[in-house]
Amino acid sequence: MNGKLSHIGIAVANLKEAVEVFSTVLDKEPECFEEIADQKIKTAIYATGESRVELLEGTSPDSPISKFIEKRGPGIHHMAVQVDDIDKELARLKEAGVRLIDETPRLGAEGAQIAFIHPKSTAGILIELQQHH
Amino acid sequence: MNGKLSHIGIAVANLKEAVEVFSTVLDKEPECFEEIADQKIKTAIYATGESRVELLEGTSPDSPISKFIEKRGPGIHHMAVQVDDIDKELARLKEAGVRLIDETPRLGAEGAQIAFIHPKSTAGILIELQQHH
Repeated sequence: MNGKLSHIGIAVANLKEAVEVFSTVLDKEPECFEEIADQKIKTAIYATGESRVELLEGTSPDSPISKFIEKRGPGIHHMAVQVDDIDKELARLKEAGVRLIDETPRLGAEGAQIAFIHPKSTAGILIELQQHH
Repeated sequence: MNGKLSHIGIAVANLKEAVEVFSTVLDKEPECFEEIADQKIKTAIYATGESRVELLEGTSPDSPISKFIEKRGPGIHHMAVQVDDIDKELARLKEAGVRLIDETPRLGAEGAQIAFIHPKSTAGILIELQQHH
């Protein structure tokens, strides 16, 4: 395990507007901007100590971020927890009866191995496990 | 400024059940439990590196947490950003036209000075500023 809060992902309706207000509040500019085509999102990432804050806008109505906003409005979409050995943690959670969205890791941003846990198993909260490259 | 992500607050319907699943996922027990009477919440706090994860259950239907869940379902309720001088940051934000819930800091858990920014000014996201004791 490791268990550090790696990042939070925030669903926003308009990335440009959100970057303006977050840059004001955090008193800094994003570290980087990224478009992740297969997840249909574009993102702006702020360094906030050990953790990062990722603003996420859907680039298509069927993006998970667009659907989240349609259903619940803008808000914090998920939290990511850093793990040292993602295969080991997924096996441990499966053994404990926790429902997984990704039973095997897939490739996330910057070469990280990631997997999502099903929110039905985690009190409605979407949690991502992330093993850094 | 300082700008570290200090904690995230997660609205849960049932603290006991949420602690069970979060303890499984994070592979650790909460650092502490606390009841904050004037905010009508009870909380379980996990140490997750520099940041902390706070599970929050409303203790009354008119608690902000209960209202959040009624409106949107369980989810991540707010994020807290660490600041070195909260009075200075509040003045800076006010000057920048950011709407504040708390124009002057109030006392939070563990003697921290806290203030909330109005989500109407921050793309719908509730942000807390926190100056540690």
